[in-house]
Amino acid sequence: MYSSEKPIRIVLIGGSGYTGLETLRWLERHEAAEVVGLFGSSNIGPIDEIHPMLSGQTNLTQQPYSPQAVAECNADLAMLCVPHKVAMSYVPDLRALGLRVIDWSADYRLADAAVYEQWYCPHTDPAGLADAVYGLPEFFADKIAGANLVANPGCYPTCAILAIAPLLAAGLIEPADIVVNAISGITGAGRSPSLAQHFPERNENFEPYKIASHRHMPEMEQVLATLSGKEPAVVFVPHLCPMDRGMLCSIYANPAGGATEEKLIETLQAAYADKPFVRVRTDVIPATKYVADTNFCDVTARLAKGKVMIFAAIDNLLKGASTQAIQNMNIMFGLKEDMGLY
Amino acid sequence: MYSSEKPIRIVLIGGSGYTGLETLRWLERHEAAEVVGLFGSSNIGPIDEIHPMLSGQTNLTQQPYSPQAVAECNADLAMLCVPHKVAMSYVPDLRALGLRVIDWSADYRLADAAVYEQWYCPHTDPAGLADAVYGLPEFFADKIAGANLVANPGCYPTCAILAIAPLLAAGLIEPADIVVNAISGITGAGRSPSLAQHFPERNENFEPYKIASHRHMPEMEQVLATLSGKEPAVVFVPHLCPMDRGMLCSIYANPAGGATEEKLIETLQAAYADKPFVRVRTDVIPATKYVADTNFCDVTARLAKGKVMIFAAIDNLLKGASTQAIQNMNIMFGLKEDMGLY
Amino acid sequence: MYSSEKPIRIVLIGGSGYTGLETLRWLERHEAAEVVGLFGSSNIGPIDEIHPMLSGQTNLTQQPYSPQAVAECNADLAMLCVPHKVAMSYVPDLRALGLRVIDWSADYRLADAAVYEQWYCPHTDPAGLADAVYGLPEFFADKIAGANLVANPGCYPTCAILAIAPLLAAGLIEPADIVVNAISGITGAGRSPSLAQHFPERNENFEPYKIASHRHMPEMEQVLATLSGKEPAVVFVPHLCPMDRGMLCSIYANPAGGATEEKLIETLQAAYADKPFVRVRTDVIPATKYVADTNFCDVTARLAKGKVMIFAAIDNLLKGASTQAIQNMNIMFGLKEDMGLY
Amino acid sequence: MYSSEKPIRIVLIGGSGYTGLETLRWLERHEAAEVVGLFGSSNIGPIDEIHPMLSGQTNLTQQPYSPQAVAECNADLAMLCVPHKVAMSYVPDLRALGLRVIDWSADYRLADAAVYEQWYCPHTDPAGLADAVYGLPEFFADKIAGANLVANPGCYPTCAILAIAPLLAAGLIEPADIVVNAISGITGAGRSPSLAQHFPERNENFEPYKIASHRHMPEMEQVLATLSGKEPAVVFVPHLCPMDRGMLCSIYANPAGGATEEKLIETLQAAYADKPFVRVRTDVIPATKYVADTNFCDVTARLAKGKVMIFAAIDNLLKGASTQAIQNMNIMFGLKEDMGLY
Repeated sequence: MYSSEKPIRIVLIGGSGYTGLETLRWLERHEAAEVVGLFGSSNIGPIDEIHPMLSGQTNLTQQPYSPQAVAECNADLAMLCVPHKVAMSYVPDLRALGLRVIDWSADYRLADAAVYEQWYCPHTDPAGLADAVYGLPEFFADKIAGANLVANPGCYPTCAILAIAPLLAAGLIEPADIVVNAISGITGAGRSPSLAQHFPERNENFEPYKIASHRHMPEMEQVLATLSGKEPAVVFVPHLCPMDRGMLCSIYANPAGGATEEKLIETLQAAYADKPFVRVRTDVIPATKYVADTNFCDVTARLAKGKVMIFAAIDNLLKGASTQAIQNMNIMFGLKEDMGLY
Repeated sequence: MYSSEKPIRIVLIGGSGYTGLETLRWLERHEAAEVVGLFGSSNIGPIDEIHPMLSGQTNLTQQPYSPQAVAECNADLAMLCVPHKVAMSYVPDLRALGLRVIDWSADYRLADAAVYEQWYCPHTDPAGLADAVYGLPEFFADKIAGANLVANPGCYPTCAILAIAPLLAAGLIEPADIVVNAISGITGAGRSPSLAQHFPERNENFEPYKIASHRHMPEMEQVLATLSGKEPAVVFVPHLCPMDRGMLCSIYANPAGGATEEKLIETLQAAYADKPFVRVRTDVIPATKYVADTNFCDVTARLAKGKVMIFAAIDNLLKGASTQAIQNMNIMFGLKEDMGLY
Repeated sequence: MYSSEKPIRIVLIGGSGYTGLETLRWLERHEAAEVVGLFGSSNIGPIDEIHPMLSGQTNLTQQPYSPQAVAECNADLAMLCVPHKVAMSYVPDLRALGLRVIDWSADYRLADAAVYEQWYCPHTDPAGLADAVYGLPEFFADKIAGANLVANPGCYPTCAILAIAPLLAAGLIEPADIVVNAISGITGAGRSPSLAQHFPERNENFEPYKIASHRHMPEMEQVLATLSGKEPAVVFVPHLCPMDRGMLCSIYANPAGGATEEKLIETLQAAYADKPFVRVRTDVIPATKYVADTNFCDVTARLAKGKVMIFAAIDNLLKGASTQAIQNMNIMFGLKEDMGLY
Repeated sequence: MYSSEKPIRIVLIGGSGYTGLETLRWLERHEAAEVVGLFGSSNIGPIDEIHPMLSGQTNLTQQPYSPQAVAECNADLAMLCVPHKVAMSYVPDLRALGLRVIDWSADYRLADAAVYEQWYCPHTDPAGLADAVYGLPEFFADKIAGANLVANPGCYPTCAILAIAPLLAAGLIEPADIVVNAISGITGAGRSPSLAQHFPERNENFEPYKIASHRHMPEMEQVLATLSGKEPAVVFVPHLCPMDRGMLCSIYANPAGGATEEKLIETLQAAYADKPFVRVRTDVIPATKYVADTNFCDVTARLAKGKVMIFAAIDNLLKGASTQAIQNMNIMFGLKEDMGLY
């Protein structure tokens, strides 16, 4: 059994970005986990030179990734904070070394390789894809517990699926014509500089992007189909909001099955009654600040003018990425689901 | 004829808030208009003590409002930047003095007093209401030219109506089931301090409010009905975005009449071909920064996954309030529509 | 000995503000401390209604403060996040109950009642004042360990003293003519709404305030005098910076004692060699983001053009208030100084 | 005489950055100036594709720079918004064409080529340097009026010199030991993306940079020496503040000549009595928001604890660059100094 005496031994691959940073910060607080190796393809060197805020908290050095170097770490788990395509070029080797894997990228999220290839690129690890489990703990905890390869969900899909799935499964909204209008803080765009995310271009600015063409749209549809047994059609429009972190989905759907506002709320409450990180709200409207720096998802529903409206908020870097991965880790290694996550 | 030699003489009532401030700044640049009196119910004194940025540009002093004091100004036009209910308590006197009036409040926007009273309070000036013209110049310029009382539109309705009206009138979207998901900068909440708009509560935060219950919703429906001859049903959900100014509507509607993306764009282009302040975009997606500090509205449309999506952006304080009022003034007094507005 | 089995029993008084909120969040993570009572004078009710982000993490309810109610908690420690003057009206009763006390306010920081009264108001607890220990752990850990009443330092003094004290004590800067030019995020202004901190007034704005007249100035001078045995004269000018949290002091002093940049850095390094929360920087210039959400103070020094320049950064709510108090608590109760503080 | 009938014909070189954008926006409002040519070395094409906010206001197209292309414009004035070194490679040709020139770069600001070369690079246009006039209109209007080549000042020097010069010249502060602690909005860093100005790195962050090593420091010293006849020593430390625009200098100096707060204020008032764009403040402390989007400089002085403190604020892109250039243009071409500048 893992504990502070015998912690989970983790190699983290990809420490340069924001999700790598958050993973390191939160694992530092985790009593039964230890990062024993840190690897990357660039920014080789002490991690506190890449992220000066980590100074004094860690002595980790990012080293060039190679399966050999990972092998020497004698680890239990590999966490991959690397881009898609890179991830699936590493995972087979890591699994061959006997490591369990949690992957932040999109490479193992879409069960159907053809759908993956339509939105991303040719898939090079069909065996991994066949074994992968979608890491949304509120719905797939049983499979995650035994998984060797967990595909950590996208930030937008996490937020949207937690909002929609229970109501769709309960038949309280129509599967057709679901609009997901979403906003994200700018950390969601990653850490590579670009004119679009240059401070004076992005500050005091709000704009839609990738209108109904974002790669997280098929991910939402696939998982919602799995969870509801229906064929949902989602129109997904993300927007960039001038703040560091936070994500909010405003979802519009058509009611079904005699939906009332009371039934909507009760259905959400029932779905998340024993889930520590989803807070079903009634009076408080979800807002990004209430979930910032936490692993919580806040969700509520309204019915007015013949429309079901669902609002959900998460921290895009945490429940949308890094702490959700730790939640998955806890489940995979038999720890309390919420260990180290407050 | 009005000119820099014989400017329009204006009394401005309500200089303490953000719309009052912007009106004063922009009128300063206007070659054929002059503020000859400034009145308010509080913050009596030099206006540059209330708004220190105006120092060196104006010597105006805000004086206690009374019809007598206004009468002595020998003005042509009264501009009212005061709250609803206050506005309709002033307007009859101002009109009795022979002044033409532009009113920023909601008091004269809803043609049907019963609808007004359902959303606001008892209406005390039915005569004014009967005479009032809705001041959206792109659609009502003819009536505005001869109007004695112009109801300057709400910020959200301005943005949403400019986006929706041409497509609804052309039969390219269904009147039922129109979702207006909107965001606004915080100046839209006015200048009175509150916990909700306290900097650390609002900064780095994004949240919906007044879900399908905002007073601008019936205003949108009324004007869209007038312009299209249909009975549109609008679900309107505003959100607060952590920035000073800017407004963006993301609108979702069902296609009709053989709508294609090309037809949608062409219809918008035709509607605004000779309108100086609506820019129909194709490649550029509307963003609030492109319209900040301007009187422009940017708009574009997309069709994907069976849904029409329309995006429109304005500066909530300018095209959504103060420069739109100046645009109305230009039309009322026979000046070039865009005078003083760049 | 305190531990997770026998935690320190804490009553927190004043949970409504930002420091109360942060204290609750961080104590939640602390393995050897437990909040057993929460009291206030307003906002009575479940704390997660006052701070919705706390929902799901705590069941605490803020109750009306009274010594009797506190007595029933059978607590070891009282933490006071209340304004000055209120604090000294509570502390005698709390001490009479046998509780040790950490006070966030200014009431017990200035050892000389006459100085206190010059800057604040009449002092009503001279006995407490005589017993109080100034809670800057890097310099007063020995006294803190045995203290019954700890005056948690002001945010600006924490930052400035950590920067200046070692260099002043070492004779590397002149005690006369020390300029502390400081900035703070807006949480430093508290949670009461005001026009000055209304979002659109404060956003995209930067301004000095209380020029050489802020109450933290005598606090700096007193503690620096104690630590150096000199009579420093500090000119302190704070500024408001449009961000939530973070504090940075840019300090200008005249060199003495053959100061070189190397000596300055070495002196800081020696002073903080075994202090877990002060990071002496060389290449990295302190910036607020590197210390945000941490208990760290980053500090460095430069010498150019005949001037010593010292730069220090903290999180105003954490090392400047709430986590510093927890650091003090750890020392008072014999725990590891950094327990629960990463 | 220039007027709206016979406007000044301007070629603008360098339209891609923020100062180019602001110049185009403000010249659009100017009744006696017209941009007849727009040139650059990159971003060739319609300027409203580079700056979408300009759409509908201008039909200008940025063309590849060449002296021949400029010659065909039959212009009166060349405005250069290009980096240093590039500027001095263009200016001789432009002057040979008979154009008067206003240059935004540093190439003609430092009268002594040796000083220039110490801070920048070898100087290639000594003839230009000999003819150039420093374009700070409050002090050099007479020379500017007749100048063929005006070096538009740096943003920090504009702000600092306007604050310091009158007091230094009047002998009310010591020339030695002047500390200029300054902050700037991020547009001051230009429009080229970098990790340092990537939104999530810069937002909610405040940090010093180029400590006592910024190139604007010798510029301040040179101009202050010219204006005062003294040899001032300035320690200049700039900081980056998370906002778009605005600059504030907090200046610390030692009093001289029997300085009192009253004398300091009176001296500033006398210096700027007939200067339209410097506002000497008494009760209002300068703040960046009061000068944002204006050509104003706000300034005030305090004396406390034996220190003179001067605070000055400008908009770094306007009085610190683009509108100051237009103010210079007005003076060069015999127009009213403040034409088109409100």
